[in-house]
Amino acid sequence: MLSKVRIVGSGLIGTSIGLGLVQRGIAVEMVDSEPSAQALARDLTGGVVVLDPELVIFALPTSGLAQVIQSEIAINPQSTFMDVGSVKNEVVLQVKTFSGLSTRFLPTHPMAGREIGGASSARADLFQGRRWILTPEPDCAPESKELVLELITLLGAAPIELSALDHDAAVAKISHLPQIAASLVAKQLSGTPSEWMELAGQGLRDTTRIAGSDEKLWKEIIYSNRAEISELLISLQNDLTQMIESLDDPAKIAELIAAGREGKAKIPGKHGGKAREYSYLPIVIDDKPGQLGAIFNECAAMQVNVEDLNIEHSPGQLSALITLSLSADDAEKLSSHLTSIGWNVHPIRK
Amino acid sequence: MLSKVRIVGSGLIGTSIGLGLVQRGIAVEMVDSEPSAQALARDLTGGVVVLDPELVIFALPTSGLAQVIQSEIAINPQSTFMDVGSVKNEVVLQVKTFSGLSTRFLPTHPMAGREIGGASSARADLFQGRRWILTPEPDCAPESKELVLELITLLGAAPIELSALDHDAAVAKISHLPQIAASLVAKQLSGTPSEWMELAGQGLRDTTRIAGSDEKLWKEIIYSNRAEISELLISLQNDLTQMIESLDDPAKIAELIAAGREGKAKIPGKHGGKAREYSYLPIVIDDKPGQLGAIFNECAAMQVNVEDLNIEHSPGQLSALITLSLSADDAEKLSSHLTSIGWNVHPIRK
Repeated sequence: MLSKVRIVGSGLIGTSIGLGLVQRGIAVEMVDSEPSAQALARDLTGGVVVLDPELVIFALPTSGLAQVIQSEIAINPQSTFMDVGSVKNEVVLQVKTFSGLSTRFLPTHPMAGREIGGASSARADLFQGRRWILTPEPDCAPESKELVLELITLLGAAPIELSALDHDAAVAKISHLPQIAASLVAKQLSGTPSEWMELAGQGLRDTTRIAGSDEKLWKEIIYSNRAEISELLISLQNDLTQMIESLDDPAKIAELIAAGREGKAKIPGKHGGKAREYSYLPIVIDDKPGQLGAIFNECAAMQVNVEDLNIEHSPGQLSALITLSLSADDAEKLSSHLTSIGWNVHPIRK
Repeated sequence: MLSKVRIVGSGLIGTSIGLGLVQRGIAVEMVDSEPSAQALARDLTGGVVVLDPELVIFALPTSGLAQVIQSEIAINPQSTFMDVGSVKNEVVLQVKTFSGLSTRFLPTHPMAGREIGGASSARADLFQGRRWILTPEPDCAPESKELVLELITLLGAAPIELSALDHDAAVAKISHLPQIAASLVAKQLSGTPSEWMELAGQGLRDTTRIAGSDEKLWKEIIYSNRAEISELLISLQNDLTQMIESLDDPAKIAELIAAGREGKAKIPGKHGGKAREYSYLPIVIDDKPGQLGAIFNECAAMQVNVEDLNIEHSPGQLSALITLSLSADDAEKLSSHLTSIGWNVHPIRK
C-alpha cells in the first residue's frame, strides 16, 4: 500500500503526480535542484518531509538521471524507483549500470502533458483517462510493480505494459516522427510573403500545429530516441525522394497519396479502439452569443451526443459555420429536428 | 451585369456556383460530359437552357480544359470565360495557345472545398466568406474582369488578385506541401501493430488529418504544379537530411525545431490578419447530454464569445475535457463565473 512518496523533479509531470497523490491522502515530498521550483511544488502539495518512502519518482530530464539515482539509492536503500521520461531503453541501460537496481526500478511513461511546463501548470487530474506505459525488465520484483500499478490507478490512468524497445519504436512513430515532420514543414514557411500566408487554410494549420512545441524539451526526446527515429526519418526520406522523382507521373503521385490514406486509416478513433466513422452536420449560425447554447440545448433535448465540434468564422462576416461530429443516427435525427425549427442546417455529409 | 451563365463541369465547385447564382436570380445552364452528373446538376439548379451567356465557367480538371475551351469559344464567341482550377500558370499557358482568348479569359481559384466531391455535395453558400483568387494577365479586358468580380462578390467571396506564378508558388507552400508531407508521414504508419496505434495522440491526428484526401484530385493538382512543388520538396529534403545528420547533436536538433516554431508563427489567426493569442479554458464535464448546452448558456449570459472548442473524451471514463478558446478577458470572466457556480474549471493557460 502506497502511503509515502518522494518525487524528484518539480516540473509539470512531477508536481501533477504530487497534487494527485496528496488529493488521495498520500504523503508527498517534492524535491528539485532548483530551489524556487521546489518551494512552489511544496507549497502546492502541502510541504511535508517524508522518511522511508515506498516509492521514489524521478520526474526530470533523462540526461540528469544517472547522477540523481546515485544519491537517491544512497538515501533510500529500501525504496522502489520509477521514472516518467518519454524514452525508455536509454533508462533501462542506465539502470543496469547500478548493480541490483533493475529489480526495483520501473521505467514508465505517462501519455499526458500540456503545452506549457512548470509546477505552476500542474494539475491533479492531468493523468485521468490517459494511458501510462510501464516497461518492466524481466527481473522486476512483483511488489515493486504492484506499487507502481497502484500509483497509476490512483491517478486515474490506464496502465499498459510494453518492452522498452517496443515503447521507443512506438513513440518514435506516433509522436516523434509527426513532431519532426511538422517542424520541418513549418520551417519552409519562413520568409513567405504575408499576403500568401493570408491564404492559409485549416490543412496547413493542422499539419503544423505541434511545430509550436518547445525545442528544449524536444531536443532531449529526439536525441534520446535517435536510433528509432533515424530509421523512420530515412524511410520518410526515401518516400520523399520517390515523390520528387514521381512528379512527372500522375499515376505514381496517386499511389503515394493513396498509401498515405491507408496509413492514416490505422489511427484509431478518439475513444480508442476501432476508428469511429462520424457524420458531420454543418450549421450556419449568426456569430453572436447564445447561438451555440441554443444548439446544444436542442442536442440535449433530442438526447444527441456531440462527439466533436469545429467552429469556422468567416472573415469579415457575421455568420459562423459550426460543424458537429455525431453518430450517423444522431446526425439524421438532429438534422431534421433543427431544420424543422428553422436552423440553417446543411445536408449531412459523412 | 451578370444575367446568364453557362457552367461546364457539374462537380462540387461547378454545381455550388450554379446553386449560388440561381439563388440570386441568375439564369444558369449546367453542362457535364457525364450525363448523370449533368442531370443532377440541372435538377438542382432549375434546368434552364441559356443562350449567349455573358460568362462561361470551366469547372473541370485542367487536363480536360484545352478541348472544352475549343468547343465553347465556337458556341459562345462573345462570352467571357473563367476557370476555377487549383493551379493557374498552366491554365495561362493553355489559354495563350488560343489567339485573342486571353483578353477575355480569367484564371481564378476559389479557396473553398469540402471533403467529398460531386454535385450532390454542392452548397449555394460554399464560397461565403472565402477568398477567391484571380490571376488576370496584363491584356485582360476590364469588362471581362468586372463580370468575374461581380460573380465572386455575388457568391459572398472576397476577391484577391495575384499573378499566376505567385499564386502557384503560394498554394504550393500553404496547401500542396502540407498535403504531401501529411500523406508521406501517414504512409509510415502502414504495418504498425494496432497496440502501438492505440497510443496515438492528438499530435499524430492533426499532422495526418489531410492524408485522408482523395488521390484522384491530388494527383492532378500536384502534377499541374510540379515545378513549384519540386523546389519545396527538395528544400524539405535538405532539412530532413540535416535532421538525420544532427540526431547525435541536441543543440542542432533544437535549432531545427526552433526554426519550425518560427515558421509556424507566420500562419495568421483564423479570422485572417494577425494571429490571435487565445486563452484556453479547460473544463471537466460529465460526458452526458445537456452539459455543453449549460456551459454555452452561461457563456451567452456572460456575453462571452467562444472562438473555438475542443472536446476530449477520456477513454473508459464518464467525464470529458472541454477546452474553450477565448479572448484573455473573456477567459478570466468566464473562469471565475463558472467556478463560482460549481463547474470544474481548471486554471487558465495561455
